[in-house]
Amino acid sequence: MESAIDSHLTCPRSISRRVPDDYEPPFPMWVGRADHRIQQVTMAYLGVQSSGAEHRTEALAAVRQIAASLEHADGPAHHDITHHTDNQGYDNFMIVGYWSDPSAFGRWMSSPDVDSWWSSTDRETGPLGYFREIVSPRVDQFETLYAFQEQLPGVGALMNGISGDINEHGYWGSMRERIPLSQNDWMQPRRDESLRVVHGDPAHGGRVVVAGHDNIALIRSGQDWREAGQAERDLYLDEIQPTLQAGMDFLRDNGADVGCYSNRLVQNIDLDGNPVDETYNIGHWRSLEKLERWAESHPTHLRIFTTFFKVATDLDKLRLYHEVSVADGASQLFEYINCHPATGMMRDAVVAATVDA
Amino acid sequence: MESAIDSHLTCPRSISRRVPDDYEPPFPMWVGRADHRIQQVTMAYLGVQSSGAEHRTEALAAVRQIAASLEHADGPAHHDITHHTDNQGYDNFMIVGYWSDPSAFGRWMSSPDVDSWWSSTDRETGPLGYFREIVSPRVDQFETLYAFQEQLPGVGALMNGISGDINEHGYWGSMRERIPLSQNDWMQPRRDESLRVVHGDPAHGGRVVVAGHDNIALIRSGQDWREAGQAERDLYLDEIQPTLQAGMDFLRDNGADVGCYSNRLVQNIDLDGNPVDETYNIGHWRSLEKLERWAESHPTHLRIFTTFFKVATDLDKLRLYHEVSVADGASQLFEYINCHPATGMMRDAVVAATVDA
Repeated sequence: MESAIDSHLTCPRSISRRVPDDYEPPFPMWVGRADHRIQQVTMAYLGVQSSGAEHRTEALAAVRQIAASLEHADGPAHHDITHHTDNQGYDNFMIVGYWSDPSAFGRWMSSPDVDSWWSSTDRETGPLGYFREIVSPRVDQFETLYAFQEQLPGVGALMNGISGDINEHGYWGSMRERIPLSQNDWMQPRRDESLRVVHGDPAHGGRVVVAGHDNIALIRSGQDWREAGQAERDLYLDEIQPTLQAGMDFLRDNGADVGCYSNRLVQNIDLDGNPVDETYNIGHWRSLEKLERWAESHPTHLRIFTTFFKVATDLDKLRLYHEVSVADGASQLFEYINCHPATGMMRDAVVAATVDA
Repeated sequence: MESAIDSHLTCPRSISRRVPDDYEPPFPMWVGRADHRIQQVTMAYLGVQSSGAEHRTEALAAVRQIAASLEHADGPAHHDITHHTDNQGYDNFMIVGYWSDPSAFGRWMSSPDVDSWWSSTDRETGPLGYFREIVSPRVDQFETLYAFQEQLPGVGALMNGISGDINEHGYWGSMRERIPLSQNDWMQPRRDESLRVVHGDPAHGGRVVVAGHDNIALIRSGQDWREAGQAERDLYLDEIQPTLQAGMDFLRDNGADVGCYSNRLVQNIDLDGNPVDETYNIGHWRSLEKLERWAESHPTHLRIFTTFFKVATDLDKLRLYHEVSVADGASQLFEYINCHPATGMMRDAVVAATVDA
């Protein structure tokens, strides 16, 4: 049994754990272990938005263009591609890339091909929208949790290894305690901080930039039943998936009331847009605390949680995991081109009064 | 908004809270406030056990005898009377008394009438069993929580007043944080501590004494729908009660696996044995931690919890509450006369090997 917090990130605490020293989790779970030289990562959610089947081909071409741009000396160590339909009826494709060094990401983003593509006025006309939502948490600002030990998805793909059985899971509060920064930091935004539109106007389309704030929390929570046998497929599709969908739809549609800025349950696809048996939810939250409060009190999430408790010990090929990060405001970038105004961070962002208003 | 921990019991912490300083609960709840002169209380569960309708009259006569004995200069400030049928099919009647001073309780228990009744060989013959399960937590060792503000039941009846809206509720871990001792103490039993039979043999009936250990946790969790209108009666009887019964039956029958020594869902009765619309559950746990783990992970309890969250703001006459204490081993007394061997603390108590075994 080891701590979820890697040895080089352990430090004297000013904030105690929630459970006594002799706490024993009810079943084994694992976390990713990264090369100690990794200090900060970049998670880039690169989106293409379209409306209607008639624009699907064009949207997928843009997806392939972005995917091709990742094949670059400073490209990400890992990426995957997803699709979801949002509650405005738009199709959204995302290429999600993971860099083990934000400066490599910076070089990639400012490389001539990538920059000129994003900056081109071509992006501002035509039927497609584009967005990029980027956070760069330090290694003391994120945690992972896997019910399996091989071929880690998401940020886990950057990490060189897997832990042994970890102690910090199986109780409410363990997510926070797996984040190394929690030893001495509450990871709270200031009360007066909120999302702000700092460029453009979501109501008018075009280019919009939203400024985040310290300690926005991002959760990616995944389900992969590609290799599952019939029993686990049934378990997932009959017992977990419907409740998951209900809970994630709730957050998508009512998130503003509970501190969830954006919530998307996405399905992995191949480069031609064909779905594979893998989904994940992407949630952006005002704070880790808001995420905690929702997760531990909403009937849908509690039902998923108790189902997971029941089956965790016997999972074979059904892969369930999550990764959760907080990031400094200065390490966030939320940019939109011609997306509908409820897209991503725009929905809850305050538009500043104009000077002559 | 005030702390659940009364001002005179607040002290510098070595164990931090689970939630940030600016946590705000989702609805109001209240705790009892006691006269600051009260330092320790006694909670005495005084039982009569019988089997079959043919012994009911005799059992109720014993109940009335015990109730009459409480009318004493050193009697309790408050008591109530309950009945439940246990999973061996026995009827159990309990008179539950609350003293605001353990020395008064001690004088009551050793008063000639009470002592000679308990010590009489008459108790050892005949069809009835008797038990007394007594704990005396200090004021820093217990907490209360009420969804109402008047006529506090249980230990609340000893307390002179009610708090304003308190901060420490609405999240897992708040029960622990309402107990003043949690500021600096994990309230854990030692690993090698367990219940022990220190006198007699449960398998042979007669007089048995069980020794507890430090930090056994006792929860009384109550539901009172005596004054409820039709809508709240329906809410309670249709939505809460069946799940509560299922959860409490689980603990009664499977408690040993999760650290619950004894669990009884009891119904209040009058002196003639007629039921009233008030029930409560009495759970004895190896530790507060075991209680926390079960409460925050078991489907039945989570369902009760989410229902409560949904209705809490609108409760009118349906009274829901709990009180939770831990007690030092030296402040516990568990005694049984002619009770079946699965009664109370006997079920999980280790019988020491005899000297010549």
